[in-house]
Amino acid sequence: MTGEEIRLQAVGHVESPLVDLDVAPRQGDEGAPEAWLVFEPGVADALRDVQVGDRLVLLTWLDRGRRDVLVVHPRGDVSRPATGVFSTRSPDRPNPIGLHTPVVLAVDGTRLLVGELEALDGTPILDVKPVLEPPGRR
Amino acid sequence: MTGEEIRLQAVGHVESPLVDLDVAPRQGDEGAPEAWLVFEPGVADALRDVQVGDRLVLLTWLDRGRRDVLVVHPRGDVSRPATGVFSTRSPDRPNPIGLHTPVVLAVDGTRLLVGELEALDGTPILDVKPVLEPPGRR
Repeated sequence: MTGEEIRLQAVGHVESPLVDLDVAPRQGDEGAPEAWLVFEPGVADALRDVQVGDRLVLLTWLDRGRRDVLVVHPRGDVSRPATGVFSTRSPDRPNPIGLHTPVVLAVDGTRLLVGELEALDGTPILDVKPVLEPPGRR
Repeated sequence: MTGEEIRLQAVGHVESPLVDLDVAPRQGDEGAPEAWLVFEPGVADALRDVQVGDRLVLLTWLDRGRRDVLVVHPRGDVSRPATGVFSTRSPDRPNPIGLHTPVVLAVDGTRLLVGELEALDGTPILDVKPVLEPPGRR
């Protein structure tokens, strides 16, 4: 690859009982636990309008993903045909950005408790956005 | 902010007739044009199973976003209350990652033509994923 280098800075990290990649669920609705999103104090203003009950688009950096993997067997099942990673949700991919849509269960300053999050403990948080549901767009 | 630094490498870029931030639509379904997604040759294998008709989750780097902005008037409308950027889709935010869900209209090697994309010409591409529609997950 010869693409431009881009530098991000984590805005927080995940605190979760999930510490073992091998037992983590592959999607949030497959038995994932609650987790805390712990934000840097410097982004408190960005977070100030997030409320209990909001469904978020949460982007994370899957720092345990393998960035040299371009083809995988979906969900690790070797009976399924090898597939280019851009057609899968594999955490192994050139830029392993995780996309999650958890619901906010509690707000405590710059910490958000969310339900059903499959990200591992310590995973860096890159961005948070609202889920867009037209016409209630904001 | 004191969060960890994370380095990504663009996997491609957008070729679009949209070159002017001031006239770009704010969402893809608000009159955005077709655009080409031009991938680095090194990620061709990751792309190999993307087909015409697929709806993609496309993550881009909104390189013209202002990273020091934490609060905005949604959609630039000063009559709307100032809102923390994590509750908006503003391109101005600490890590300006764009989230788009265009449909693939044509495939030409490592170039994909997609419909209704609001990203500006030259925008770096970070990742591509399938839209998950249970139970047809892969």
